Amino acid sequence: MRVLGIDPGLTRCGVGVVDVEPNRTARLVDVVVLRSPAELDTPRRLARIAEGLEAIIDEHRPHAVALERVFARSDVSTIMGTAQISGVAMLIAARRSLPVALHTPSEVKAAITGYGRADKAQVGAMVARILGLDAVPKPADAADALALAICHAWRTGGVAGAAVADAKAPVPEGTVLTPAQRAWIAAERSAAVSGAARRLKE
Amino acid sequence: MRVLGIDPGLTRCGVGVVDVEPNRTARLVDVVVLRSPAELDTPRRLARIAEGLEAIIDEHRPHAVALERVFARSDVSTIMGTAQISGVAMLIAARRSLPVALHTPSEVKAAITGYGRADKAQVGAMVARILGLDAVPKPADAADALALAICHAWRTGGVAGAAVADAKAPVPEGTVLTPAQRAWIAAERSAAVSGAARRLKE
Repeated sequence: MRVLGIDPGLTRCGVGVVDVEPNRTARLVDVVVLRSPAELDTPRRLARIAEGLEAIIDEHRPHAVALERVFARSDVSTIMGTAQISGVAMLIAARRSLPVALHTPSEVKAAITGYGRADKAQVGAMVARILGLDAVPKPADAADALALAICHAWRTGGVAGAAVADAKAPVPEGTVLTPAQRAWIAAERSAAVSGAARRLKE
Repeated sequence: MRVLGIDPGLTRCGVGVVDVEPNRTARLVDVVVLRSPAELDTPRRLARIAEGLEAIIDEHRPHAVALERVFARSDVSTIMGTAQISGVAMLIAARRSLPVALHTPSEVKAAITGYGRADKAQVGAMVARILGLDAVPKPADAADALALAICHAWRTGGVAGAAVADAKAPVPEGTVLTPAQRAWIAAERSAAVSGAARRLKE
């Protein structure tokens, strides 16, 4: 499953593309941070980011788009820019018939590090480890976009709607799994087993 | 000057097109309320509204787009939908090289009724009067979109960057002006006169 993750922003918009196998192993395809100069007006800044997003989607043809779910924060101008970019990203995805999923920052952190309040450094370090990278992707927007993409693939079981079946698939020999991946697989297997057990009892 | 006003919303998006002369008289060109069904996911709803906006812009070819400036309000989900639609509208305008202007609700009310805290009924009644309509455009989103478009044309003097010169243009015989239009013209003429007086003194 190829997922494009977007950490939406008007000044810096992180975009990461990963391939994730049903056994949870993930591979980096591409990662960029799209930028728009603050001197431009908002419509032109949105158009600049939109162009970059369209180019990446058309180049890598992901199966799904994962976006950070935006919440109201203290800085209204930041929320607006983020919500506007999210709207533009959703429009671009919808026009290509790509499914869009939203994940909250704590959902992403929990999926990647096993801890919903992990800091940016922990998320970055885990992203590098999961993808087998020598260094943490910089800036944080790049790592966050990759984390979103991985989170989405893992939460949907690598193939949308096939989470339980996939969790039972054997992990190939020599695959290095992170603690979070191992914990996730164990949790899903146990859920699958208890689900099966429940069904037997009913 | 032909202006397209947008009262952004995911459920109902008001879109009004008006022609405004330098002497402030305004004529209705078109008004619609674009809707998207709540059963669709947000990306598809945005795409639905975007299609409608593009069709109206391509049909009427306005010179400028006026959008309601979105502020943080109590209901976060409403802000998000509104900001997302705004982002989509800005993108569509930017891709057609159309200038986009933002006006706050109180700026619109002040321009149309002379009172920044006017209620929806007052704004609707003045919009009908300014455009010479027999009835107030319904729903309120339609009237608000027209008010935005008129407000934008008036605030920019009917022709962007030509406010003072235009304010001096004579109003044609028989033109019915609203109190707000008369007050606006008087204020601009007095500003133009005092500006000229200041320049003579300097």
